Amino acid sequence: MSKTQVNLAYRITEFAGPLEGLTQVEEPIPKPRAHEVLVRIHAASLNFRDYAVLSKLYPFPIKNNVVPGSDMAGEVVAVGEGVDAYKVGDRVTANFDQENFYGPSKDWNTGLGAPIDGVLQKYRVFHEMGLLHFPKHLSYEEAACWPCTGVTAWNALFGGIPIIPGQTVLLQGTGGVSMTALQLAHTMGAKTIITSSSDKKLELAKEMGATHTINYKKQPDWDKVVKQLTEGRGADHILDVVGINEIERCFGSVKQGGVISTIGFLGGELKAYPNVPALALSTGAILRGINIGSKQLHEDLLRFVDTNKLRPHIDKVFPFEQTREALDYLSKGQHSGKIVIKVSS
Amino acid sequence: MSKTQVNLAYRITEFAGPLEGLTQVEEPIPKPRAHEVLVRIHAASLNFRDYAVLSKLYPFPIKNNVVPGSDMAGEVVAVGEGVDAYKVGDRVTANFDQENFYGPSKDWNTGLGAPIDGVLQKYRVFHEMGLLHFPKHLSYEEAACWPCTGVTAWNALFGGIPIIPGQTVLLQGTGGVSMTALQLAHTMGAKTIITSSSDKKLELAKEMGATHTINYKKQPDWDKVVKQLTEGRGADHILDVVGINEIERCFGSVKQGGVISTIGFLGGELKAYPNVPALALSTGAILRGINIGSKQLHEDLLRFVDTNKLRPHIDKVFPFEQTREALDYLSKGQHSGKIVIKVSS
Amino acid sequence: MSKTQVNLAYRITEFAGPLEGLTQVEEPIPKPRAHEVLVRIHAASLNFRDYAVLSKLYPFPIKNNVVPGSDMAGEVVAVGEGVDAYKVGDRVTANFDQENFYGPSKDWNTGLGAPIDGVLQKYRVFHEMGLLHFPKHLSYEEAACWPCTGVTAWNALFGGIPIIPGQTVLLQGTGGVSMTALQLAHTMGAKTIITSSSDKKLELAKEMGATHTINYKKQPDWDKVVKQLTEGRGADHILDVVGINEIERCFGSVKQGGVISTIGFLGGELKAYPNVPALALSTGAILRGINIGSKQLHEDLLRFVDTNKLRPHIDKVFPFEQTREALDYLSKGQHSGKIVIKVSS
Amino acid sequence: MSKTQVNLAYRITEFAGPLEGLTQVEEPIPKPRAHEVLVRIHAASLNFRDYAVLSKLYPFPIKNNVVPGSDMAGEVVAVGEGVDAYKVGDRVTANFDQENFYGPSKDWNTGLGAPIDGVLQKYRVFHEMGLLHFPKHLSYEEAACWPCTGVTAWNALFGGIPIIPGQTVLLQGTGGVSMTALQLAHTMGAKTIITSSSDKKLELAKEMGATHTINYKKQPDWDKVVKQLTEGRGADHILDVVGINEIERCFGSVKQGGVISTIGFLGGELKAYPNVPALALSTGAILRGINIGSKQLHEDLLRFVDTNKLRPHIDKVFPFEQTREALDYLSKGQHSGKIVIKVSS
Repeated sequence: MSKTQVNLAYRITEFAGPLEGLTQVEEPIPKPRAHEVLVRIHAASLNFRDYAVLSKLYPFPIKNNVVPGSDMAGEVVAVGEGVDAYKVGDRVTANFDQENFYGPSKDWNTGLGAPIDGVLQKYRVFHEMGLLHFPKHLSYEEAACWPCTGVTAWNALFGGIPIIPGQTVLLQGTGGVSMTALQLAHTMGAKTIITSSSDKKLELAKEMGATHTINYKKQPDWDKVVKQLTEGRGADHILDVVGINEIERCFGSVKQGGVISTIGFLGGELKAYPNVPALALSTGAILRGINIGSKQLHEDLLRFVDTNKLRPHIDKVFPFEQTREALDYLSKGQHSGKIVIKVSS
Repeated sequence: MSKTQVNLAYRITEFAGPLEGLTQVEEPIPKPRAHEVLVRIHAASLNFRDYAVLSKLYPFPIKNNVVPGSDMAGEVVAVGEGVDAYKVGDRVTANFDQENFYGPSKDWNTGLGAPIDGVLQKYRVFHEMGLLHFPKHLSYEEAACWPCTGVTAWNALFGGIPIIPGQTVLLQGTGGVSMTALQLAHTMGAKTIITSSSDKKLELAKEMGATHTINYKKQPDWDKVVKQLTEGRGADHILDVVGINEIERCFGSVKQGGVISTIGFLGGELKAYPNVPALALSTGAILRGINIGSKQLHEDLLRFVDTNKLRPHIDKVFPFEQTREALDYLSKGQHSGKIVIKVSS
Repeated sequence: MSKTQVNLAYRITEFAGPLEGLTQVEEPIPKPRAHEVLVRIHAASLNFRDYAVLSKLYPFPIKNNVVPGSDMAGEVVAVGEGVDAYKVGDRVTANFDQENFYGPSKDWNTGLGAPIDGVLQKYRVFHEMGLLHFPKHLSYEEAACWPCTGVTAWNALFGGIPIIPGQTVLLQGTGGVSMTALQLAHTMGAKTIITSSSDKKLELAKEMGATHTINYKKQPDWDKVVKQLTEGRGADHILDVVGINEIERCFGSVKQGGVISTIGFLGGELKAYPNVPALALSTGAILRGINIGSKQLHEDLLRFVDTNKLRPHIDKVFPFEQTREALDYLSKGQHSGKIVIKVSS
Repeated sequence: MSKTQVNLAYRITEFAGPLEGLTQVEEPIPKPRAHEVLVRIHAASLNFRDYAVLSKLYPFPIKNNVVPGSDMAGEVVAVGEGVDAYKVGDRVTANFDQENFYGPSKDWNTGLGAPIDGVLQKYRVFHEMGLLHFPKHLSYEEAACWPCTGVTAWNALFGGIPIIPGQTVLLQGTGGVSMTALQLAHTMGAKTIITSSSDKKLELAKEMGATHTINYKKQPDWDKVVKQLTEGRGADHILDVVGINEIERCFGSVKQGGVISTIGFLGGELKAYPNVPALALSTGAILRGINIGSKQLHEDLLRFVDTNKLRPHIDKVFPFEQTREALDYLSKGQHSGKIVIKVSS
């Protein structure tokens, strides 16, 4: 097998975390069948989910020997019969859920990187429906940053009860989804409030457009602060990345009839036992679970990114050969912004 | 004060339940100021909330000496200056939250019967904005039945993510809101599934149009039954009247991306400690608290009632003098359908 | 080529109307490639559009030698590689626009029967995304009736500003779209008003649930009648199948802020020159062009048909051999309900 | 009558344009009844509609002797009984349609300045429901600029099919509504294209954030230019201020399924006779008449203005005594931005 015909891929041979669990394999480059597209992957970005999959913390089925990674940008190098929407040379990205085209996701069975093979490989064949063109102003590295964090943030803002520009968005912490949501919400003329335990990170958030910041270490009753900052009304939209342990404060921060989008489960072991239906009842608020999002939302997001020439905040770019190191770096949680793998150049 | 100038009203002089707590008082009939309307109340209907207020189980502030009761139908007997929308002789009903005209309720401060004076009295002055005309085919007794149960059910179906006719609605038990929601959902071409512990009540629900019934005593895993009845998908809309103790089964019954409207708190003491954000995350579902609803929703409901010539299911009509007995009867929970007070004739 | 391997198809060899224009040809049965499905077509239904295509009245490009017909129901007889959603034996129908999955149609380039090959043939290969399962209670003949008229009617009611059950829908004439919309609107608890020049057809409409009927020959100012029937307000939704010559009366019939869905162009030569933007301005109404509709709307329609066990009104069923006669019969315009071709049995 | 008890008001004693038609009168300051609020008007802004009313070009009923003017900002100086939402000293503005709280306007009977008395006077009593608080960062002059142009632009963007940030908005000319819509759309991250016959005005638009500009004198086929600027797709939202004479180009510029909001009638005599329903049909587009808008939309607008600290572009401020001159200046059409009357100081 000559070098040019070989696909290099990382597969999870053991669910043992980034350094031991991943094996690089050589495989034939697959051929696109009808209605399929072969993509040469140029860049991939990492998400906490990738680490969770590797460490078997991910609460959904994962196939053995899976190729991890869900976010990529690449170049079409071959198209199967009957493909009209893409041609060789097109620059493309992929939707996380390869079969969620519109509306809510049907299940967790068609997500890139778990349970189906993902993008930490040089080449991958995609169904023509699973791809999207990305804005011209973005490099491959930049384009690889939106599929999970961007679509999740957009889904929180537009997938249920759409945000009305001018409303207030509350963000927790300075992780990937929160920072992306800050960028999106700020650009569309929303008021943004962001919490963190680090004044330095809050300073950065301020520079990126946050209207107000709250250091929750110094102000543990941050829900009361949110109420003060909104003249007693509360936030219209909250992106909750913590889960059950802080959900009571989310309801304490939300406007009557507002929306809490529940995204993550960073709260560690269950310490709180709040009566969530009673909290929803007394606030008239909405709690909505976010599973990344549909291709339709992804298209809307990329149009917004294009119109406003947005660029992601990239923390560090690793070469493909250092994918394990990149995942290890991710697992440390010291980064701020996206970690990108340069797969090909 | 001659009889014709006297208003007879029930006031809560003690929060001691229906029989001891209520006192009938004689008061002058109030005069409508500008933009106000004097209504002679013909009929009122009772809700569990009225009993909760009387017994101080209601989890919101209640003013002392309040006139209870929130649902009425009456006749305009005088209008203040500047009132154009109503004239003497008009047949009217009132919205529960007298200041929630559109969108979510702002707070719980303007609800009839608590905290502001309600309708268990012969005459009441209303702000012109707090009233609505009701459909011609309804008697006063029938028209008095919709403000709380009807608007709550309509709000669950249309106030958040609107139901699409043809979708599946899951209803718990055969109480007022559930039976009204059954009637509404069935009339708009939804599939309906209803649960109860009584085969007899399920039989009645079947007659009223329920597509499927589940006796949860016989089938305690009723969430699995709901999934079977929907070909594995789950219900699109669930009206949850139980709260925290059964919320896990609600999430077990809901479609990916479906809506659980949380309405009641019938579940007694807290037995369950489910991680509701995690349930929302894994189902992509929406949990939404329902606080009765706005005048806009009320208008839409009454238009629907009018178009389809719907009538409420009335269990029993009591004369005004037996209001205490009616509330006592309500507190026993043996009724099926609305309990109505004939206030005037 | 043995009989069982042959596909019989009608192709338009001349745009000369039903009797001369159509030629039956024998062709090899195509094979499904990856992500494709071979369907044995059991039944097709005709639309006025089919006649327009044959007679070159259709105002969009048509490829030469096209197979006409857009509405079918059939059985999966083979699936290509990578197809998960369909298996041999599944009963399926197809969306008119094979590439309009959600949102508005992008163009007119992927419509069945023009410009791409349609369904007046025994076998056809479809892209897996272009198909839908249909409700169990429908026969193939019944299932073939919904793709154009049904989705068009549903799109008018739900594709733009969604109808709220209880609102008033105005329908013009008793053609396919209007009668289907009557059935749908009535089943979802809307008030329906229908116009016709024939008392006999209005009688039929009444039997099918029309709330009010108007004979526009007897009451040429039918817009004023609509206003009277709606207490001066006007209809919330109007399905306009006539076009420019009657558009002024549509605006005369519509509620402030209501929706006029423009569907057809039955009005013959242009006689009227109304200032439509001025009419929109003075009514605050919406005029919306309807191009059949997306797969998403089609799914919602079929769920509604399923829940309510609706059946189409079929005027007459012709055998495949009499397809020309069926199209000729269609062109006469004397039918009421759908004309169906039994393609296979 | 002492000076402090006197209300000075302009009334239209003759429909003869700004200089002859207006008479300044002295009247007693009205007293607020229950549910009413007395406002000392500090500033008013003018709209083309005011000139149309004065010249009897306005196509709706106008009462004799009316006080013109619809846009004001002022200070609460007295409240009637039963008013909770406003207190003395509050800074307030008013909704154009004093009885359109949500949804479409019911009719044209409750608009300030025609048919009911408007704001070109020192004091006016308002119904409590007709007022709104305005953002703190705005002066009275600035706050007086939003009620007509701002709410109209917001209604076009959010009142029907809501804009999704990132979409493309096409604006015609540099009049008040178009420039306000440019400001709003740009601030919420939309792509904006604006047309004008003046390169100088286009230069200004560019400075205010327009993404693209088109000089329609130089490029009379501006619809084709819009298509080019949107990669062949067309604009998602068009604000049409011209009406029938340019509507065909609007449909030529609109995206499949896009929205054309028809606002004005600046096109002079009817020269074009386009078949608008056919245009809607072939584009799947929506034509929607805009009648300023509801209080709900107004609140959303002011929240957006507040969050983004927007200020209107004011062309010139006239003292109250020069109201006639200000209206005359308005009628010349040489201004760019709002013309404001300083009513009190």
